[in-house]
Amino acid sequence: MAERAGVSVTTVSFVLNERPGSGISVETRDRVLRVAREMGYRPNAAARSLRTQVTNTIGLISDQIVTDNYGGDLIRGALATALQHDHLLIVVESQDDPEVERHLVEDLLARQVDGIILATITSDRIQLPGIRHGRTVLLNCTSSHALPAILADELGGGREAANALLRAGHRHGIFLVGEVTDTLRPARERHRGVTAALGEAGAELEGMIGCRWWPESAYDAVSTQLSSREAPRALICLNDRVAFGAYQALADAGLRIPDDVSVVSFDDSELARWLRPQLTSVALPYFDMGRIAVESVLGLSQEWAHAPDQEHLVAMPVRERGSIAAPRSGAAPA
Amino acid sequence: MAERAGVSVTTVSFVLNERPGSGISVETRDRVLRVAREMGYRPNAAARSLRTQVTNTIGLISDQIVTDNYGGDLIRGALATALQHDHLLIVVESQDDPEVERHLVEDLLARQVDGIILATITSDRIQLPGIRHGRTVLLNCTSSHALPAILADELGGGREAANALLRAGHRHGIFLVGEVTDTLRPARERHRGVTAALGEAGAELEGMIGCRWWPESAYDAVSTQLSSREAPRALICLNDRVAFGAYQALADAGLRIPDDVSVVSFDDSELARWLRPQLTSVALPYFDMGRIAVESVLGLSQEWAHAPDQEHLVAMPVRERGSIAAPRSGAAPA
Repeated sequence: MAERAGVSVTTVSFVLNERPGSGISVETRDRVLRVAREMGYRPNAAARSLRTQVTNTIGLISDQIVTDNYGGDLIRGALATALQHDHLLIVVESQDDPEVERHLVEDLLARQVDGIILATITSDRIQLPGIRHGRTVLLNCTSSHALPAILADELGGGREAANALLRAGHRHGIFLVGEVTDTLRPARERHRGVTAALGEAGAELEGMIGCRWWPESAYDAVSTQLSSREAPRALICLNDRVAFGAYQALADAGLRIPDDVSVVSFDDSELARWLRPQLTSVALPYFDMGRIAVESVLGLSQEWAHAPDQEHLVAMPVRERGSIAAPRSGAAPA
Repeated sequence: MAERAGVSVTTVSFVLNERPGSGISVETRDRVLRVAREMGYRPNAAARSLRTQVTNTIGLISDQIVTDNYGGDLIRGALATALQHDHLLIVVESQDDPEVERHLVEDLLARQVDGIILATITSDRIQLPGIRHGRTVLLNCTSSHALPAILADELGGGREAANALLRAGHRHGIFLVGEVTDTLRPARERHRGVTAALGEAGAELEGMIGCRWWPESAYDAVSTQLSSREAPRALICLNDRVAFGAYQALADAGLRIPDDVSVVSFDDSELARWLRPQLTSVALPYFDMGRIAVESVLGLSQEWAHAPDQEHLVAMPVRERGSIAAPRSGAAPA
């Protein structure tokens, strides 16, 4: 390559390795790069990586985001952002086995990755592995250590759901459908956000319709509620799958959405667009969260400059569709 | 460690590296391993990997399986099998960009992976990257090269779907719902399998209800068909999402599943269990395909001993649920 470009081997090396201040003229640099291109050499991240073998890599260890159907956007945001900054993202999965996780961390450390993202799909506090990279970021989870943690603003999301109903004029007969426990952060925070926003508007939840996170459980629970004397006028479902079951129960009871009952949900999954009418849902900002995690690992995120080791909450915007209407006038319970 | 165990450094090294035939007594070996455990040393795959830094690794390059909602089981099967054989699976994604893919292959080669799995979610013929690992396996796709390719037996799956209807007594008014083109292997093969099985039973498709692969498109197409004079008695939907749209159209037309119309589908996704009645669906064997791909890369797969460089078809079993019943007697069209 030096021969074809008419320069020394050292000059070629300096140009291709992008050493600054090596006193090479622009013309020489351009000639070397042109010859390099003609010869199939690409002076980019891949080539640099081949030279040093282990640079420009970020490791993402998840419990089961990869194989879970719902975490795709977390990975998609992280992948796109890593590529944009010439980094390779290695995605590995511990399948919730601490021994496997430790194995994976050790392996990634041996590969000299620039940083590690620890991610879960359950949004809970995690036990950190005993051995740890100096630049570790938590994605969709927290720990007892002072580490950056990227989380969805579930509390704000809860407010969004309640406000969507309040804007349409709902004040009465609003039920929460799902399972609220102290241990599962999304449900707990969504519930808190809903009650806070309703309270500020002088309203409150009429009741809870308890069920698991799946359509069949929601169908049973909502069907039971519909056969009682307290008919709901609006349902806040804790995720789209729960809303799916609620849709089925309402249809079987001969009730129309949104004319008879309004429905709002969380996640903004594909299901929300597939239902008829399409479901108003508060979006999980997974793509943005993946992006911010990579920016944080690379030290690029402005938001982190002053308080790097805190929780970073990413907004959950409501996607308004056709499942909310004004409550029927005159049909309000006492 | 040698000091604490009272043996030579060479003996420790031999034990920890599991060199066979090195003449070390069982007692000495046990003592070394006990001391090693006490000192936190783990003589397993992780430790061996740390020593050599790059062994025991398989790379999986996908176009967008990781971030797609439907390919999770391919990765899950590959991950589980790799872990079982003390291998780390590195999952990377090209996002369908050939330049990124080349970058990824080069990087994995530099990391001296034991093999590379190239996977897609679209089940089409792929262009292989110009640079290639000697042990490359194709997962859910084919190429013009003689390489092992793990594919779902879509033709057999088509037969399964038709046979499920035939067993229930259906012979007439059977429609295929979806989009059949020459270029998309799953649709083409499923269609071929359906017509072959029906033909052997002296039956045939009454017609095609053309639509895209999404619920809304299927809803529109099936609704239009239901308003024509040719009312279907059974629908074979090309995937579960299409079946979802068909369910919605049948409900809106006041038709009951399975009493008025039987429905069978493909994929056996979560949706199949969420629908009411639950949907009989022909399963995509993604977990098994991921498993076989890893076994093939590692040279463990018995099936490959005699014909390693051919297509390996994995069976698609039907999962029978509540969406098929016998056709109503007396209601048969002429």
